[in-house]
Amino acid sequence: MSKDKLTEFNQQLQWADQFVKEQLIPIEQEIIHADFASVESRLAELRETVKRQGLWAPHMPESVGGTCQSLEALGRLSEVLGQTPIGHYVFGCQAPDAGNMELLAHFGSTEQQQTWLQPLIEGSIRSCFAMTEPDTAGSNPTLLKTRAELVSDQWVINGRKWFTSSADGADVCIVMAVTDEDAAKHQRASMFIVPKSTPGFKIIRNISVMGEPGSGYFSHSEVEFSDCKVPKNALLGGVGEGFALAQTRLGPGRIHHCMRWLGICRRALNIMIDYANKRQVSNRHNLGDMQTIQNWIAESAAEIEAARCLVLKTAEQIERLGFMKAKTQVSMIKYFTANVLQKVLDRSLQTLGALGMTDDTIIAFFFRHERAARIYDGPDEVHKNLVARSLLKNNLYQSSH
Amino acid sequence: MSKDKLTEFNQQLQWADQFVKEQLIPIEQEIIHADFASVESRLAELRETVKRQGLWAPHMPESVGGTCQSLEALGRLSEVLGQTPIGHYVFGCQAPDAGNMELLAHFGSTEQQQTWLQPLIEGSIRSCFAMTEPDTAGSNPTLLKTRAELVSDQWVINGRKWFTSSADGADVCIVMAVTDEDAAKHQRASMFIVPKSTPGFKIIRNISVMGEPGSGYFSHSEVEFSDCKVPKNALLGGVGEGFALAQTRLGPGRIHHCMRWLGICRRALNIMIDYANKRQVSNRHNLGDMQTIQNWIAESAAEIEAARCLVLKTAEQIERLGFMKAKTQVSMIKYFTANVLQKVLDRSLQTLGALGMTDDTIIAFFFRHERAARIYDGPDEVHKNLVARSLLKNNLYQSSH
Amino acid sequence: MSKDKLTEFNQQLQWADQFVKEQLIPIEQEIIHADFASVESRLAELRETVKRQGLWAPHMPESVGGTCQSLEALGRLSEVLGQTPIGHYVFGCQAPDAGNMELLAHFGSTEQQQTWLQPLIEGSIRSCFAMTEPDTAGSNPTLLKTRAELVSDQWVINGRKWFTSSADGADVCIVMAVTDEDAAKHQRASMFIVPKSTPGFKIIRNISVMGEPGSGYFSHSEVEFSDCKVPKNALLGGVGEGFALAQTRLGPGRIHHCMRWLGICRRALNIMIDYANKRQVSNRHNLGDMQTIQNWIAESAAEIEAARCLVLKTAEQIERLGFMKAKTQVSMIKYFTANVLQKVLDRSLQTLGALGMTDDTIIAFFFRHERAARIYDGPDEVHKNLVARSLLKNNLYQSSH
Amino acid sequence: MSKDKLTEFNQQLQWADQFVKEQLIPIEQEIIHADFASVESRLAELRETVKRQGLWAPHMPESVGGTCQSLEALGRLSEVLGQTPIGHYVFGCQAPDAGNMELLAHFGSTEQQQTWLQPLIEGSIRSCFAMTEPDTAGSNPTLLKTRAELVSDQWVINGRKWFTSSADGADVCIVMAVTDEDAAKHQRASMFIVPKSTPGFKIIRNISVMGEPGSGYFSHSEVEFSDCKVPKNALLGGVGEGFALAQTRLGPGRIHHCMRWLGICRRALNIMIDYANKRQVSNRHNLGDMQTIQNWIAESAAEIEAARCLVLKTAEQIERLGFMKAKTQVSMIKYFTANVLQKVLDRSLQTLGALGMTDDTIIAFFFRHERAARIYDGPDEVHKNLVARSLLKNNLYQSSH
Repeated sequence: MSKDKLTEFNQQLQWADQFVKEQLIPIEQEIIHADFASVESRLAELRETVKRQGLWAPHMPESVGGTCQSLEALGRLSEVLGQTPIGHYVFGCQAPDAGNMELLAHFGSTEQQQTWLQPLIEGSIRSCFAMTEPDTAGSNPTLLKTRAELVSDQWVINGRKWFTSSADGADVCIVMAVTDEDAAKHQRASMFIVPKSTPGFKIIRNISVMGEPGSGYFSHSEVEFSDCKVPKNALLGGVGEGFALAQTRLGPGRIHHCMRWLGICRRALNIMIDYANKRQVSNRHNLGDMQTIQNWIAESAAEIEAARCLVLKTAEQIERLGFMKAKTQVSMIKYFTANVLQKVLDRSLQTLGALGMTDDTIIAFFFRHERAARIYDGPDEVHKNLVARSLLKNNLYQSSH
Repeated sequence: MSKDKLTEFNQQLQWADQFVKEQLIPIEQEIIHADFASVESRLAELRETVKRQGLWAPHMPESVGGTCQSLEALGRLSEVLGQTPIGHYVFGCQAPDAGNMELLAHFGSTEQQQTWLQPLIEGSIRSCFAMTEPDTAGSNPTLLKTRAELVSDQWVINGRKWFTSSADGADVCIVMAVTDEDAAKHQRASMFIVPKSTPGFKIIRNISVMGEPGSGYFSHSEVEFSDCKVPKNALLGGVGEGFALAQTRLGPGRIHHCMRWLGICRRALNIMIDYANKRQVSNRHNLGDMQTIQNWIAESAAEIEAARCLVLKTAEQIERLGFMKAKTQVSMIKYFTANVLQKVLDRSLQTLGALGMTDDTIIAFFFRHERAARIYDGPDEVHKNLVARSLLKNNLYQSSH
Repeated sequence: MSKDKLTEFNQQLQWADQFVKEQLIPIEQEIIHADFASVESRLAELRETVKRQGLWAPHMPESVGGTCQSLEALGRLSEVLGQTPIGHYVFGCQAPDAGNMELLAHFGSTEQQQTWLQPLIEGSIRSCFAMTEPDTAGSNPTLLKTRAELVSDQWVINGRKWFTSSADGADVCIVMAVTDEDAAKHQRASMFIVPKSTPGFKIIRNISVMGEPGSGYFSHSEVEFSDCKVPKNALLGGVGEGFALAQTRLGPGRIHHCMRWLGICRRALNIMIDYANKRQVSNRHNLGDMQTIQNWIAESAAEIEAARCLVLKTAEQIERLGFMKAKTQVSMIKYFTANVLQKVLDRSLQTLGALGMTDDTIIAFFFRHERAARIYDGPDEVHKNLVARSLLKNNLYQSSH
Repeated sequence: MSKDKLTEFNQQLQWADQFVKEQLIPIEQEIIHADFASVESRLAELRETVKRQGLWAPHMPESVGGTCQSLEALGRLSEVLGQTPIGHYVFGCQAPDAGNMELLAHFGSTEQQQTWLQPLIEGSIRSCFAMTEPDTAGSNPTLLKTRAELVSDQWVINGRKWFTSSADGADVCIVMAVTDEDAAKHQRASMFIVPKSTPGFKIIRNISVMGEPGSGYFSHSEVEFSDCKVPKNALLGGVGEGFALAQTRLGPGRIHHCMRWLGICRRALNIMIDYANKRQVSNRHNLGDMQTIQNWIAESAAEIEAARCLVLKTAEQIERLGFMKAKTQVSMIKYFTANVLQKVLDRSLQTLGALGMTDDTIIAFFFRHERAARIYDGPDEVHKNLVARSLLKNNLYQSSH
C-alpha cells in the first residue's frame, strides 16, 4: 500500500473499531442468543452502514463488488471485527460465505458466478460448505465417504456431513464428494454446488454445540445427501480437484481466521484489564494489584503481539510468494494462534471469577465456542505434523524472510 | 473400616458403578437439558432404588438416616457418582443440600433439625445456600455487603447474592449476612435460615451460565433480600459464627467435591480411550495409535491417580487429625485436583475432535460447567496463597504423615 | 509394619534426617567437586556411623547384612537421603551398586554372591552396570549391539557402552550383551559379571556431563569391551534372561529413585521457602510476599505431596501384588515424579535468581544433573507409551486399589 | 535500508552464517572449556578475518569504527552469531563490552572515549560492568548498597558486586554506585569508570556458575571495592544519572540479546532435527517419525518464528519511535523470548536423550548457562510487572503499530 492508501486505511480501521464498540458490542448478546430470523433485518441495517462506509466485503476485490486492499489489510480489519461474534457478518466477510465467495471467484464458471457469487457478495443470500463428516476423520481425505456418481448427465450425491455451518437458512451448499475412489489420495474428490431446494438434500438437525443448537447463521447443521441429483454443471472446478480447491479456500482464509482470533484475544484482554482495574479485593487493593493477574495480563499481551506479528508477516509472505511457498508458515499460525486464543480466554475467565462463568459477559461464549479453534480446519496435531515433516525433509530450520 | 465392612463397601461401590453406567448415564443428557420439574418424578424413582440398596445420603451418619461409613468411603462413592452429572442427586448427597445438611446436623437447634434437616435427609425438600455476592470478592469476607440487623426480635436481611445454586424450587435458603461490621474480620457474619416464602426473599433470575440458565436443581440463581424478615430463631449457630460454620461446611465437602471431579476425570478418560480405540485415522491405524493421544492418555491417568491418592490421604488425615490440622492439605487438593480436571477434560475434548464440541457426548457439558472448579469454593489463587503462607510461616516444608 | 516397628522406624528416619542436615549437607559441595579418591576415607567414616545406627544397606534384607524393613520404609528413607547428593552413598544404598546387589541377591550363584555380593553389601568394593550404548536407542532392545559369544568355554564380549555410572574405581561391571540375535525380542540378551582387571575391558573416558566429567563414584564412563573374555560362570542368571533380570532390577529401584527425587524436591522447596523469607525486595517486603513466589511454593508443595502419595502407594502395591501387576503404575510414577522434580527445581532456581545459577547453593547441581531424570531408565516418552497401550488394550481406565 | 544495501547485507549475513558454521562451531567447545588466555590469540586471528570482511563491531556506527547498519540489521546478525557461544566475541560485539561501548559513545567525555572507547572498539582491551550485588535484589534500585562518596576531589567507592561478567582479564570496569541516598528512587546512583589497577578494586573469585568457574572472557566474577578511589572525571554521565544510563544500555542491548537467544534456538532446533533424522529407534523408524518429536519440532519452529517477528518489529519500533515509546514492547520480548529459549533447549535436550546430558554436543552448555536468560537484565517477573502496570494504567490493550 502507498502511504496515502495506508493513512486512509488506518482511518477506516478506526471507524470500524468505533463502529464495533458503539454499534455491535452493545447488541451482540441479544443477536447471538435470538432466533436468527428475528434479528436479520436489524443486522441488514447495520450492513447498509458498512456498505456506505466502503468497507463491505473486504475479502473480495473491488472488481467484483468488494473492498479488498491487500491480505494484510483484510487481516487487520478481521482483527477489529473479531472483537464481537457479529462483526464479520455485519461486514459481509463471514465464514463460510467468505470462503465460498473465494471459491466461486477463482473457480466458478461465468454462470456459477452470476447465479451465486453476485448475490453472495451483495449479501442477499447465504451459503454453506459441507465437507466434514461425522463418521470419518477429516484429517485423512482417503476416508471421505460421501460419494457423487455421474448417472446419465446428473451427479447423484449420497452421504452425510456435519458442522455444515450456517446451513440453516442458506440458499446454497457447496459439498465435497468422492468422484473417483481409485484416484490418487488428493484427487479422489470434487466439489458441487447444491441449491437448498434440491430434492435429497436435507438438514437433519442443528447440532447442539456447547449447549446451544443456535439458529440461522449462528448454527452448525448435520445434513444428508440422499440420492441428491444435480446437473453436470453443478461441478465446481474440475473433477478430482476438490482438495486443491479446498486448500485455496483455506489459505487466505487462515489469515482471516487467525486475525479474527486475535481480535477475540484483544477483546478478552481488555475485559480482563478493565475488570482488574475495577474489582476491589480489599479496601486498598483491586485485582490489578495482584501479581498473578499481572502475570496473566503480561503473558497474554506478549503472546498476542507475537502471534499478530507472525500472522501479518505470513500474510505478506502469501502475497509475495504465493500460498504454496508459505504453506508451512500457514500451518504454524494456525496452531500457534489457536493456542494463544485458548490461553488468553482461560485467563480472562479466571480473572472474572464467577462472573466469567456467566453469560453476563461475552467471555463464556468465546470460551466455549472458540475451543473449536484448535480443531476445525485441521486440528493442532495435523498442522504440527505438516510443519515437522517439512523441516525434517529439508533437514534444516531456517528463519523465514 | 474392618475387613468385612470394607469388602461389603467395595461390593456396594461396584453396585453403584453399575447403576451409574446402566441407569444414569443413558438418561443424563435428557435430564440435565429438560425442564427440571418434568423429570423430577423419574429421578425420584431412581432415588428409591438407591434407598433400597442402602446407599442413600452417604454423607450423613446412620443415626440421622444416612449411610455414611467414613470420609474416605464417602469420597470413593463420590468418585463413582461423579461420572454423571446426575449421580449425586440420585444418591441424595448433592450440593448444596449435602453441605446444608452438615451445617444443620452440626449447628442446628433441635427445632431447626426437625423442620429442615429431616426432610432434607429424606430428600422430600431441597435447599440452597446464599453466600457469594455479585458485587464483592468472595475471597475477602470483610467486603461482604449483605446485612442482617436485629430489629425488635426480628432479623431484617438486605442484600443481593448470586450463584445461589438450586434456589429455583428450593424450600429453604441458608444465607450469610454481616451482623457486626466492626467485629474482627472472621466474626462479622452470621447464618440465617430463610424459608422460600418469606416476604422480601426473591429469585431475580436463573443466571445463564455457559449458555444455559438451566432450571430447578440444575440452575444457579441471583437472589435478593429486601427487608426480608426472619424470627430470632432463624439464626443458625451463634451470632458472628458465620465464617466458622462455612469452614466446617467446606471441609469434608471438599473431599466430596474433589472425588466428584475425579469421577468426571475417570469418565472423560474412559471416553477418550474408547474413542481412540474406535476412531480410524487411516486404513491401518486408529487414533489410539497416535503418540500424541497416547501421551494424553498416559498423562491423564498419572495425574488422576496422583490426585486420587492425595485426596484420599487427606480424607484420612481429616478423620485422624481433624479438619483444622489438615487445612493446608485441604487447600492443596482443591487447586491440584481442579487443574487435573481441566487438563483431562481439555485432552478428552481434543481427542474427540469436532464431536467433542457437540452435546452428543457429555464432554462438552463437563468442559464448560466444570471450568468453575477452579473458581468456586475459593479460586486457585486464594488456596495457593493459603498454602504458601502456611509454609512460609513455618519456614519449612515437611512431608505429611 | 507393626505399630512398634513403625514408631522405631520413624525415630530412625528422624535420626537420618538430622544426620543428613548436620553431617552431610555441610560437606556435600566439597565432596562432589573433589577428586573422589581424596574424599573416600572421609565418607568411609560417615558410613561407619550409619552402620552403628543400624541403617546401613537399607535396600537389602537383614539376612544378608542389610537393614530393609519394607519397600515403603526404604522409599521413605530414600526420600530423606535424597536431600543431598551424597546421602545414598553414605548409607550404602547408592546406584548402581544397590541395583547390582539386588541382581546378585536374586539371581547370583552362591559363588557369585560370595565373591561379589558380600563385599558390595559391606561397602568394601564398588560396581557398575553397563547397559546403555552410545549408538543404539536404549528404548529398543532389538537394537542392542554389544555381543557375547561362547567360544570354547569362554564368553567373548565385544561392544561399547556409555553412562556406565561409577565405573571409575569400580571393581566389577555387570554388562548386558546379546547372546542370541535371532531370539525373541526380549530374550536376545544376557548379563555377565566382568571383573575390572579382565583384559579387553577398558574405560575410555569419564564422559563430561553438564560440564563435569567428575571422578570415582561421581562419574559416568564410556567403556569398551574388546574381545573381552570371561569364564562360563560369569553369566548372571540364564542365557537370554538379560531383560527379565534388568526389569527386576528396575522395579523396586524405581520406588527408590522416585523417592530420592522427592527428597531433592523437598530440599529445593525448603531452600526456596527459606530464601523467600530472607530476601528483601523492598523495605517492607521480602520475596515471600510476592504472589508469584507464593504460587510456586504452593504448586510445588501440592505436586510433591501428590507424587509422594502415588509413589508410596505404588510401593505398597508392588509388595502386595508383585512387580508385574504394578507395572503400569511403576511407569506412571517414573514420568510423573521426574516432571515434578524438573518443575520444582526450575522454580527454586528462579526464586534464587542469580544465586540460583551459582554453585553457592546445591540447586544448580541438581538442576543440571537431575535433568537426566526424564531420560534414564526409560525416557518419559517410552513410559507414557507403555501406560497408554495398557489402558487402550483394556479399553478401560480404573482407579487402582 | 535501501534495496541495494539490503541485498548487500543479506550477502554479508550469509557469509557470517557460513563462517560461524565452518570456522567457529568446530572449535567452540575447545574454546569455552580452555583457559581463556591460551586461546586468545587464536580468537584474535578469527577477529581479523571478520574485520577484513567488514563486519567488525556491528553494534557501533561506522563513524567510530563499527559497521552498524540499523538495529534490525544488528539483530539479524546477532541471531546468526548466537548459534555459537563464541560468535559475538569473534565479531567484536560481545557483552558486556558492547553495552559499555554504547555507554561510552553516548555519555563518555572526549577524554573517556579516547582512553576507553577506542581500544574497546578496536578489540584491544576488554571491559566489565559491575551492577548486580550479591546482597540486594537487582530489581529494586533503592536497595543498592555500593556507595561512592566524594572526598576531596576523589570518589571513594565501597561495596561488593557479583556477576561482573568477564572481569577476569578486563582492563576497565564500569561500576554503579549510590551517590545520594536521599535522592528520588531512580536518581540515587551514578556510574564510574574504574581501571583494573585501581587500588581497592579486587576480583574476589570467578564464581562457579553451573559447575564451571570459567576463565577470562568466559567467567563471571565477584568483585570488591574497598576504599577504591578514582578521580572526579571517572564519573560517567552526570551525578544521579546511573539508572538513566543503565536503561539506555539495556534498550538496544535487549534486541541484541533476544536475537542471540533466537540464534541459540535455531541451533538447538537444527541439532534436534538432524538427530531426529539420523537416530534409529527401530529397523523401520527413526526418531523423526515419532509424533512427540514432531510436536516438539513444530512447536519450537512456531515459537521461534513468532518471537523473531516480535523482536524484529520491536527493533523497528525503537528506531522509529525511540526507546522510551517502545519500552513496554522491549519488556515483552525479554520474557517472551527467554521462555521460548528455555522450552526449545529443553526439547532439544530431551530429543538427544542421554547424549543431550553430555558435553559431546553444545546443547548441555546452552541448557545450563542460558537458564540465566530468565534472570539477568530483569527477571521475567519484573518485566511482566512492568508490562501489566503499563496496560492497567492505560486501562487498554491496543495492538502495536
